[in-house]
Amino acid sequence: MNTAPEQKITIDWKPDKSDNRPMYRQIVDYMSEMIASGHWAIGSRLPSQRSLAQQFGVNRSTITTAMEELSSYGVLGGDFGRGTYVTSNTWSLMMSAAPPDWGTYIRSGSFKPNVPTIQAINKLEFVEGYIRLGTGELAPELFPKKAMEDVLGRLSSQIPSLNYLEPLGLPQLREALARRLQAQGIPATPSSILITSGSLQALQLISLCMLQPGSCVYTESPSYLKSLQVFQSAGMKLHGLPMDNHGLVYWNLPPSSLQQGRSLLYTIPTFHNPTGTLMTQKRREELFRFCQNNRLPIIEDDAYGELWFDETPPKPMKTMDRSGLILYLGTISKTLAPGMRIGWLVGPETVIERLGDVKMQIDYGASSLSQWALKEFLESGLYDLHLTRVRQQLKKRRDLALNALNTHFGDIATWNIPQGSFYIWLRLPARLSTDRLFTKALEKNLLINPGSIYDYEKNTALRLSYAYAAEDKLEQGIASLAQVVRSML
Amino acid sequence: MNTAPEQKITIDWKPDKSDNRPMYRQIVDYMSEMIASGHWAIGSRLPSQRSLAQQFGVNRSTITTAMEELSSYGVLGGDFGRGTYVTSNTWSLMMSAAPPDWGTYIRSGSFKPNVPTIQAINKLEFVEGYIRLGTGELAPELFPKKAMEDVLGRLSSQIPSLNYLEPLGLPQLREALARRLQAQGIPATPSSILITSGSLQALQLISLCMLQPGSCVYTESPSYLKSLQVFQSAGMKLHGLPMDNHGLVYWNLPPSSLQQGRSLLYTIPTFHNPTGTLMTQKRREELFRFCQNNRLPIIEDDAYGELWFDETPPKPMKTMDRSGLILYLGTISKTLAPGMRIGWLVGPETVIERLGDVKMQIDYGASSLSQWALKEFLESGLYDLHLTRVRQQLKKRRDLALNALNTHFGDIATWNIPQGSFYIWLRLPARLSTDRLFTKALEKNLLINPGSIYDYEKNTALRLSYAYAAEDKLEQGIASLAQVVRSML
Repeated sequence: MNTAPEQKITIDWKPDKSDNRPMYRQIVDYMSEMIASGHWAIGSRLPSQRSLAQQFGVNRSTITTAMEELSSYGVLGGDFGRGTYVTSNTWSLMMSAAPPDWGTYIRSGSFKPNVPTIQAINKLEFVEGYIRLGTGELAPELFPKKAMEDVLGRLSSQIPSLNYLEPLGLPQLREALARRLQAQGIPATPSSILITSGSLQALQLISLCMLQPGSCVYTESPSYLKSLQVFQSAGMKLHGLPMDNHGLVYWNLPPSSLQQGRSLLYTIPTFHNPTGTLMTQKRREELFRFCQNNRLPIIEDDAYGELWFDETPPKPMKTMDRSGLILYLGTISKTLAPGMRIGWLVGPETVIERLGDVKMQIDYGASSLSQWALKEFLESGLYDLHLTRVRQQLKKRRDLALNALNTHFGDIATWNIPQGSFYIWLRLPARLSTDRLFTKALEKNLLINPGSIYDYEKNTALRLSYAYAAEDKLEQGIASLAQVVRSML
Repeated sequence: MNTAPEQKITIDWKPDKSDNRPMYRQIVDYMSEMIASGHWAIGSRLPSQRSLAQQFGVNRSTITTAMEELSSYGVLGGDFGRGTYVTSNTWSLMMSAAPPDWGTYIRSGSFKPNVPTIQAINKLEFVEGYIRLGTGELAPELFPKKAMEDVLGRLSSQIPSLNYLEPLGLPQLREALARRLQAQGIPATPSSILITSGSLQALQLISLCMLQPGSCVYTESPSYLKSLQVFQSAGMKLHGLPMDNHGLVYWNLPPSSLQQGRSLLYTIPTFHNPTGTLMTQKRREELFRFCQNNRLPIIEDDAYGELWFDETPPKPMKTMDRSGLILYLGTISKTLAPGMRIGWLVGPETVIERLGDVKMQIDYGASSLSQWALKEFLESGLYDLHLTRVRQQLKKRRDLALNALNTHFGDIATWNIPQGSFYIWLRLPARLSTDRLFTKALEKNLLINPGSIYDYEKNTALRLSYAYAAEDKLEQGIASLAQVVRSML
């Protein structure tokens, strides 16, 4: 109980009958304010309920209700009959002790946190001094600064305003993309294309719009998709299917296990992330036929298809699709600028319309500035010029990485020789713990992407990317990584 | 059964034992290919199972399994013992009849469709010829084209690359925003700010991360939030609280109904959407204290605070917040360019970190091009110059709209006089159906936003916006709308 010297308080206030707050609420608010502002110091004694009732011109039960509420906050105490005291200053109380229980809130949502390794990577990528050997994006020096300057220069006079766009995205961009897709053999029209904030958002939209909880998404094992929580957070299950050198081993998926309307297949046929595998034309045809026969819709993620080195890869499966089986995902995140956050989803118009409607409800569309910039990149021809350069540079980097691997890892690891894109799947001895390797590598300022992030079962591989680190750092990093690995064997 | 003339087929193929597909799968794939390609015409008769087994060098049960699968697709038929025929060409079958059942898929997701009126508005806004009397964005002519040109010009040399950004967004932008917020009295630091793709995405993130299904979100009634499905789709309930001229009537929310950790209050205290109401300083203090006492976290949406006309409005409630009770939302969507899709969420660092982690998993961050552009707008002073102009122009438009209302609606409606922002809440006679009015107005090329979109109960108000339509169209549109209303009374 309060032991401070007793202080009396004065009251020159009355409830306002024209105020539409109830009387008891006005009294709670008034007293809170007096206490919070310090006008009624801690230890002050309040008049009796009877005299307060008289002074305020209200029933005594109104005073009781108000005081009980204040008492429940811990700011009043004592015996309401004989003496009531200010026991705490709400403001100081609140400041020190009673913020909302955010811990409960942030553990409550359905969306799962990233796995700790990915959280660490997401942060450490922005700490200076690490050699990033796993990063799935182009090196800053491959960004076409000059072309972007040109594009921004041309744009300023074209942009009428940057208002909200229609649900599917900037029409001029969808037209430019449709022409590009058609030239590739994909019969896309502007109304079958939804512009998304990167392919990742396309997946998020599919998870929100197209599957019930408990549905299954089949993917290659390992798969980029496994590193995300997008489907699991919406209550879907991921199932990994094995791969061989020709791509996804679809015959390991028994048709009898497929539930109509509750299954999807996600695949990256061209330069698969994380293994770099290129699905052969034959496998594409077989897989497509298998899915068509089983009415299993496909999400074909073609993020890397334009990044071939010596010869163009087999065409996307979407080129075979006459019945609208495939939702095809394209993006500039791997070829030009992930920060622009632009991808596109091509599919049947009913699907596109539904996804577009929901996109309007979750973020009102992708950046129109980015959309204008990409439209100009495509139409000016600057994008294709840039692609030519990026292919050459990536091939050079691949060769550099392969040389370094031959020199430093020849006797302790195996790997694929990628025909395009960013990734080498570096298989290390089975006795190695890549979790420990992650930590040990950090000590040497090396940031790596352990294969376990992407896999359904334990593995001892790394996703090595030759796209990001500066060329000299890439060599140095591989050499240094080999030392760390050797020290652990 | 098949009645086409009987055709025999020839087979010069065998399963490949070095192929790692199972035998039965190889046979299914081979036969599918023969049928799909037309090599085996419809009506062709297959050899007996026994002779196929012999020819392929497999068990008869392997043939049975393969044929059963093909039969289940409808491409083979007949009596497997005596005669099996090609009954359909999968390709033509699939093309005409068997796309996946997308209808089932698009009805399966958890995210609800927009209400039909909003879907109609979202589409009609991009059809030429309508006068948009409800649109909540600035007119294209208020877009600062010249300033944007300057900004893009300055940017080209600054952008080192447009790679992925760190989870909370471009550091330079968060620093510029922190300075701006501090000047307003909000003690924000760069690490307490998350850049979002508009405020809408902030709400989407909160719905994914911070509330269990069944939790309650309290809002003003009517409220912008009611026009969205973002919380309901995640299984939360919305509850409307009445408003008076001073703002939200918090005393209608009995503290006993609040469940710790499962409740949030969403409010737009400054120039409320859709009613234009400005919450008084006194009500802000009371509401804040009420929420603090009841540990009820607040989402304070301050999209419109900078758009005052004659005097600055009371400061955001966030300026009172020392315990981290408030998640504060800011945006440039209403002041500058919604198409840039940039908003910011200010809150306790634990919350910001959790939301940032999930943002990385749903779209990898907001457009970095937009973030750079906004940073430059803020730092160059061009944003503040633009605000001054926008305030003047909006005030002029408000007066124009009020004049037109006085002339045409004086005897049939009532409305507020907004002190800032875009909206007039036009209350029409109770016997009017605003759904019918929506349709009738369309016939006169008027696009309106019926108040019912925003409300918890039936109303006969419209959200009139004087921000979008060209000035002459605005006057003309209001006159024309009055005619439609009169014709319905």
